[in-house]
Amino acid sequence: MDIISEFKKIVGEANVLTEASDKAGYLEEWTQRFHGKALAVVRPASTGEVSAVLKLCNDNSISVVPQSGNTDLVGGSVPDDSGRSIVLSLTRMNKVENIDPINDTMLVEAGVILQRAQEAARDAGRLFPLSFAAQGTACLGGCLATNAGGTAVLRYGNTRELVLGLEVVLADGTVINMLRGLRKDNTGYDLKHLFLASEGTLGVITRAVVKLFPVPQAVYVAFIGVENPHKAADLLARLKSETGSAVTGFELMMSKCVERVAREIPAVHVNVDVSAAPWWCLVELSYPREPEANPFEAFLEKAFEDGLVEDAVIANSVKENRAIWSIRESIPSADAHVGNNLHNDVSIQISEIADFVDETLARLYAKYEWLDPSVYGHLGDGNLHFNIGSIPYQLAFENEEGIREIVYERVAAHNGSISAEHGIGRLKRAHFLRLKNSDELAVMVAIKKALDPKGIMNPGILLPDEAWQNQVSAG
Amino acid sequence: MDIISEFKKIVGEANVLTEASDKAGYLEEWTQRFHGKALAVVRPASTGEVSAVLKLCNDNSISVVPQSGNTDLVGGSVPDDSGRSIVLSLTRMNKVENIDPINDTMLVEAGVILQRAQEAARDAGRLFPLSFAAQGTACLGGCLATNAGGTAVLRYGNTRELVLGLEVVLADGTVINMLRGLRKDNTGYDLKHLFLASEGTLGVITRAVVKLFPVPQAVYVAFIGVENPHKAADLLARLKSETGSAVTGFELMMSKCVERVAREIPAVHVNVDVSAAPWWCLVELSYPREPEANPFEAFLEKAFEDGLVEDAVIANSVKENRAIWSIRESIPSADAHVGNNLHNDVSIQISEIADFVDETLARLYAKYEWLDPSVYGHLGDGNLHFNIGSIPYQLAFENEEGIREIVYERVAAHNGSISAEHGIGRLKRAHFLRLKNSDELAVMVAIKKALDPKGIMNPGILLPDEAWQNQVSAG
Repeated sequence: MDIISEFKKIVGEANVLTEASDKAGYLEEWTQRFHGKALAVVRPASTGEVSAVLKLCNDNSISVVPQSGNTDLVGGSVPDDSGRSIVLSLTRMNKVENIDPINDTMLVEAGVILQRAQEAARDAGRLFPLSFAAQGTACLGGCLATNAGGTAVLRYGNTRELVLGLEVVLADGTVINMLRGLRKDNTGYDLKHLFLASEGTLGVITRAVVKLFPVPQAVYVAFIGVENPHKAADLLARLKSETGSAVTGFELMMSKCVERVAREIPAVHVNVDVSAAPWWCLVELSYPREPEANPFEAFLEKAFEDGLVEDAVIANSVKENRAIWSIRESIPSADAHVGNNLHNDVSIQISEIADFVDETLARLYAKYEWLDPSVYGHLGDGNLHFNIGSIPYQLAFENEEGIREIVYERVAAHNGSISAEHGIGRLKRAHFLRLKNSDELAVMVAIKKALDPKGIMNPGILLPDEAWQNQVSAG
Repeated sequence: MDIISEFKKIVGEANVLTEASDKAGYLEEWTQRFHGKALAVVRPASTGEVSAVLKLCNDNSISVVPQSGNTDLVGGSVPDDSGRSIVLSLTRMNKVENIDPINDTMLVEAGVILQRAQEAARDAGRLFPLSFAAQGTACLGGCLATNAGGTAVLRYGNTRELVLGLEVVLADGTVINMLRGLRKDNTGYDLKHLFLASEGTLGVITRAVVKLFPVPQAVYVAFIGVENPHKAADLLARLKSETGSAVTGFELMMSKCVERVAREIPAVHVNVDVSAAPWWCLVELSYPREPEANPFEAFLEKAFEDGLVEDAVIANSVKENRAIWSIRESIPSADAHVGNNLHNDVSIQISEIADFVDETLARLYAKYEWLDPSVYGHLGDGNLHFNIGSIPYQLAFENEEGIREIVYERVAAHNGSISAEHGIGRLKRAHFLRLKNSDELAVMVAIKKALDPKGIMNPGILLPDEAWQNQVSAG
């Protein structure tokens, strides 16, 4: 049997890419750290086509690498070097199928670009809060398969918390339709949670029912300098107590991150005396209706009095809100300008995160005096991008394992996570397999084998090799 | 081997109950609809003891029925009639182990009574929002195993959404410690979600890290009469848009439910002219700090003008808030006074729930003119207790299957759920197995077999018989 012809019968000739030049864009991750080979890139347009492709692959023991926006940064959606897999691209499944503003839900296909989903919701007078830097390229399918995080998690939760219903196709082509739009449903195991964050290893997510929210009518942003991460954590606790769920963003960053943005990204206007404090917090408060006064005024006055805050700027317009967010959003680009960093995407209990920062930086500096760290992230979720650069920048990469060892050792000591929002993919697999509780790993492998007995789904991603052992013997 | 002696070696002589009189309380569900037999009731005091008991049972193919507060109403935690199971009672594991007010988390054992967990949180200046009528008896373990709902789901989510970390013991005694207190953690499949709502069929939940929240400082309650459920749904949508996450409760009830409370439960003071509207909404708004004015005043004025509301009472004190909640909370008792109801615990998309009520009541009345329904529940979550009584009350029970058929047919037509918050247990198993997508059921069975290959966990609950088939052949 000519397998390529069979794929063409299912999705049409134009949607099976076999020429090297056509496939190239699907075989490399945009940091260029991960690239592989593939038998073909297959681009289905419907759940039925996904099902037929998977059945064909399963029957013929061909591995499948699901891919949508390919922005995960951990190599989770590019194939290995064997050339025996297909890339299953979901980008043709790009319809927002339905918006229900009364139920506050939206039915989307996996290939919808995140920003399009946000715009569709806003056109219907609703907010779809999932938001992060790559939103112009990332697709919903990838967000779901990796349980993406972003800047609105503090108030609205991770992608997982935004999902009410899911449609998935199992390795053997079985379509599991769980596209329910219910807030409560206790009829058996909630299987959708298995597929969220499974990084394509258990099946292909094809459609989802996601939650929408009212659009806040008043949003306030302030940029607040603090002495250290301990003060930042205290500030967060006080804000949560005083304003409840109004806190929709709480980002912490080193002053040197801000200085680098000011220096490297001239388009971003940094209207702050960054030298006034070594750490800065971007705080966003959102309200359904305009309150009497800007809520930061009274809050910050008290916080100054109590010695929590060194300096602060309150934005006075939507434009000024944007300008402050731009500082935070430009940190990765500014870092890239001066030579890239070793990225770490860690999470720690909020009550221990300041200690974690102190301890980890002290241990790193003790060993590597040339260190130039860029620590910033979503303090409100206990999630920091603990990125390590150096002067000169190559030193960090030459000492990669030693640096990661120190960071991950401290993460483990605080019972934290080495992947808060980006997933494991190929990049963090060795560390993940070493650090994760072996009994938990064994359960994951048992589930993998129960749902994908021939081991065709996304080989080499996330799980230990034995998860695909049947495939190895069959292939 | 004398298995009873082995149990005694693990948990101590006093904690293995074999006398009929000692076991009785564990073998019957409090509605008295479900009762069974057991080899023994075994009462471990620690995770280690749970593990040793399960290993012993697994090695000897003895079934295990986990039980904590035994208030589920669906027979999910009482054994069958075979007498070959043990009841594993978690009530001795009743410690609140740790409260972290900065991380906003609490570490609890499975046998902690819900109300004690609420009180412990409040003593630390925090809110644990899970709340429902049986909270003085129900334990955390059961809440977790059934993903309990309750009155605060609209704002804080189901039990599932309140859990950050979980410790479970698998059928073979393996302890899986996932007691992390992280808001973000994308390191592999999130296994805790498998055990939440698994009704004891995959293992035993022993401990959990749950989320806490700031205590709202200002809570407002109103009791609002509306013409029909459509107007109620419109009122809810408007409230959500105008007050955002301030809406912490939205309960709908038929006026006849309120009349019955006034008649049957004299202790509850109903200070409302219920005849002014056929349906009533209890609405609760919560704020972190006292706002300028009672937010209901302006809101209701506009709602009256727009014809959304027939009548309304705004509570003016904490005592009056409580009085209105008492009306809602007393409906089950009032119904029980006049003869019990056929309980249905359904959920429907909020955008379709009013149509569902209209259609289902019309179909029921067309066939059973003696119908005396008691429809009430958590409209904000799309969850109604669609309970069917009759005059005289026996008629409903004599026509149970015909009545359930009409209700469940309409639930299925709206892609709803036949168990929103109580689970399946034994009570709804036949309907569940008939109505649930067979592919979804097949995945549940595959997971059950992967995690409990000998089929010892909670036989006859939730899943189809084949889920325990190895046990049948072994026994």
